[in-house]
Amino acid sequence: MVSSGFRATLLKLGLEEERLAVLEGKGGIVEDEFEGIRYVRFRDSARGFRRGTVVFENGDVVPGFPHIKRIVQLENGVRRVFKGEPFYVEEKVDGYNVRVVKVGRRILALTRGGFVCPFTTERILDFVDEGFFRDYPDLVLVGEMAGPESPYIVEGPPYVEGDIRFFLFDIQEKGTGKSLPAEERYDLARKYGIPHVEVFGLYDSSRIDDLRGLIERLSREGREGIVMKSPDMRRIAKYVTPYANVNDVRIGSRIFFDLPHGYFMARIKRLAFYFAERHLRGEEFDEYAKALGKALLGPFVESIHEVASGGEVEEVFTVRVKNIGTAYRMVAHFERLGVRIHIEDIEDLKNGYWRITFKRVYPDATREMRELWNGRAFVD
Amino acid sequence: MVSSGFRATLLKLGLEEERLAVLEGKGGIVEDEFEGIRYVRFRDSARGFRRGTVVFENGDVVPGFPHIKRIVQLENGVRRVFKGEPFYVEEKVDGYNVRVVKVGRRILALTRGGFVCPFTTERILDFVDEGFFRDYPDLVLVGEMAGPESPYIVEGPPYVEGDIRFFLFDIQEKGTGKSLPAEERYDLARKYGIPHVEVFGLYDSSRIDDLRGLIERLSREGREGIVMKSPDMRRIAKYVTPYANVNDVRIGSRIFFDLPHGYFMARIKRLAFYFAERHLRGEEFDEYAKALGKALLGPFVESIHEVASGGEVEEVFTVRVKNIGTAYRMVAHFERLGVRIHIEDIEDLKNGYWRITFKRVYPDATREMRELWNGRAFVD
Repeated sequence: MVSSGFRATLLKLGLEEERLAVLEGKGGIVEDEFEGIRYVRFRDSARGFRRGTVVFENGDVVPGFPHIKRIVQLENGVRRVFKGEPFYVEEKVDGYNVRVVKVGRRILALTRGGFVCPFTTERILDFVDEGFFRDYPDLVLVGEMAGPESPYIVEGPPYVEGDIRFFLFDIQEKGTGKSLPAEERYDLARKYGIPHVEVFGLYDSSRIDDLRGLIERLSREGREGIVMKSPDMRRIAKYVTPYANVNDVRIGSRIFFDLPHGYFMARIKRLAFYFAERHLRGEEFDEYAKALGKALLGPFVESIHEVASGGEVEEVFTVRVKNIGTAYRMVAHFERLGVRIHIEDIEDLKNGYWRITFKRVYPDATREMRELWNGRAFVD
Repeated sequence: MVSSGFRATLLKLGLEEERLAVLEGKGGIVEDEFEGIRYVRFRDSARGFRRGTVVFENGDVVPGFPHIKRIVQLENGVRRVFKGEPFYVEEKVDGYNVRVVKVGRRILALTRGGFVCPFTTERILDFVDEGFFRDYPDLVLVGEMAGPESPYIVEGPPYVEGDIRFFLFDIQEKGTGKSLPAEERYDLARKYGIPHVEVFGLYDSSRIDDLRGLIERLSREGREGIVMKSPDMRRIAKYVTPYANVNDVRIGSRIFFDLPHGYFMARIKRLAFYFAERHLRGEEFDEYAKALGKALLGPFVESIHEVASGGEVEEVFTVRVKNIGTAYRMVAHFERLGVRIHIEDIEDLKNGYWRITFKRVYPDATREMRELWNGRAFVD
């Protein structure tokens, strides 16, 4: 249910009364609260309100971040998306998407799903200069939080050695969600010292070999991939490295039964198109095939052994926070997401930060695995 | 729609009028015809009528063949299914399931889905002695048709060098679907010279190491697996070799987009449990991992190249028939199954048989692959 104040706001913003009733009925919009700040988040899309959109009491609207289209054949994809026109190539950083926004006097970090994230909100000012929002209160900084100590992602990019960092990759207007042109974003990031994803420069479809070389290098360096953007930000497409596809499979394999089949199959598909485009054969192909096979089976088998000896399917992760209260707010946040999590350890780093170790348990995956290990006979 | 004669038969057999109407409404039962023989096949299950059940005009009922339960942990599975009791171990042959039955004066071969298969019906008397049905008109011979020249399966077991063969593995009563005890079946097969799947003997859970050794040998020999059966046929469980799991993946990879994700994931799961149970590590594990990776990617990449150079995703298979008319009836049969197929070649083998070469095209998989190759950008 949405309170009457928000109803009025949403209607004023153009959401039709009938549509609002339907959304409420199926839980497509939910009213929520973070430290006294009330907001509505869209769990489903509605005309003009993309999934993940957040509306605040003061009428501020932060549109959901759109899904970026993917290509799996680099050369033809680049031609088809950008025709002959130039495009910027930026690194696709492997982390979680946040929208950073000033609402009233608070700076908040929103997850893709439209939650105010307690952890990211606490930490964001470590990375982003508040001055930006004084000058541009109506802009939203969109970026990736990435690093080995992350609450949502098991691993980070190789160049983030500890903790977590923020990497800007888009600046949008509140309300419309319109992106600033890429060069304006580069200028603002420079001016305010906001860390930005690496920009590899301006390419066009005639430089496909350079682009291929870039992909090869990023893959060797254990990086996720690239996002290609026309300077006006109207055309955007992403492409990931074979390294990232294999690595995602490896990370997912440990919690095999908790992931949809499509998670694995999508990555195998991307690898197959990579091999087909590159005409990889012989030893190079065999090496990748072996890496894929090991990624699929290795952590899965380890997980079975864990469960067979009485353990559970689980993941351990750490985050650094300034206030222990933030850690407990994260536990509450995960519980609302239906995730079973608990704090394993709290360590005083003596530099104003605490390192919190969480354990996430996968009860359904554990049960499934235990039953199969115990010899259940099943029809498939 | 089901004609009035069949309605009366089905009602007499105990199908409730209301249930019959529902089944008809959603196409759960379909009336069909093969060379003047009319029959009804159950596409859905109804109380007392399993999916795949066939009812003939004379009231003969051939129950659908039940799905055999699978175990993925051999030792615990055997203990759980058979307790301490002995069980026969028979080869699981990689082919397609047929039920052979005499109806009136004709001997017919029914597919799992309940169709009279024109090909198998023409060929079945090459393998099965008609005398059996003279003596036992109320029994159904259930077996696997397997070999390199098969209309439904791309490959056959290694020991069938050409053509196709029949391997008995169950004898059931018409009407009830009750299986004869295993030893009675072995006797009847011997007496009538009906080819039978290999029987590896009587085991129990104390001989788990022998059973493991058998699995290893079958896997080395490129065979599919085993079916374990209590002598009274009340408890049955199957277990497949790692070879078969990898090989299935390899065969499926060529038509990746035509198969459900679960096809691949189920086999990866079985492999993972095999490795976990055997504690395979090091080189042996790496070899299998590589084989799995190559199986997943190799034929898939070849298929992409085929489509990229203007071809289609397709499979070619051959069968041997006595009458060319049978080949055309097979084309019609496939068309009813929604499969796009055409005859590529007809060769007179000069021994009373014709070798027919079919090509099966996968238009949806081809279209999907072509679009991705051509650089389509998509949200996943």
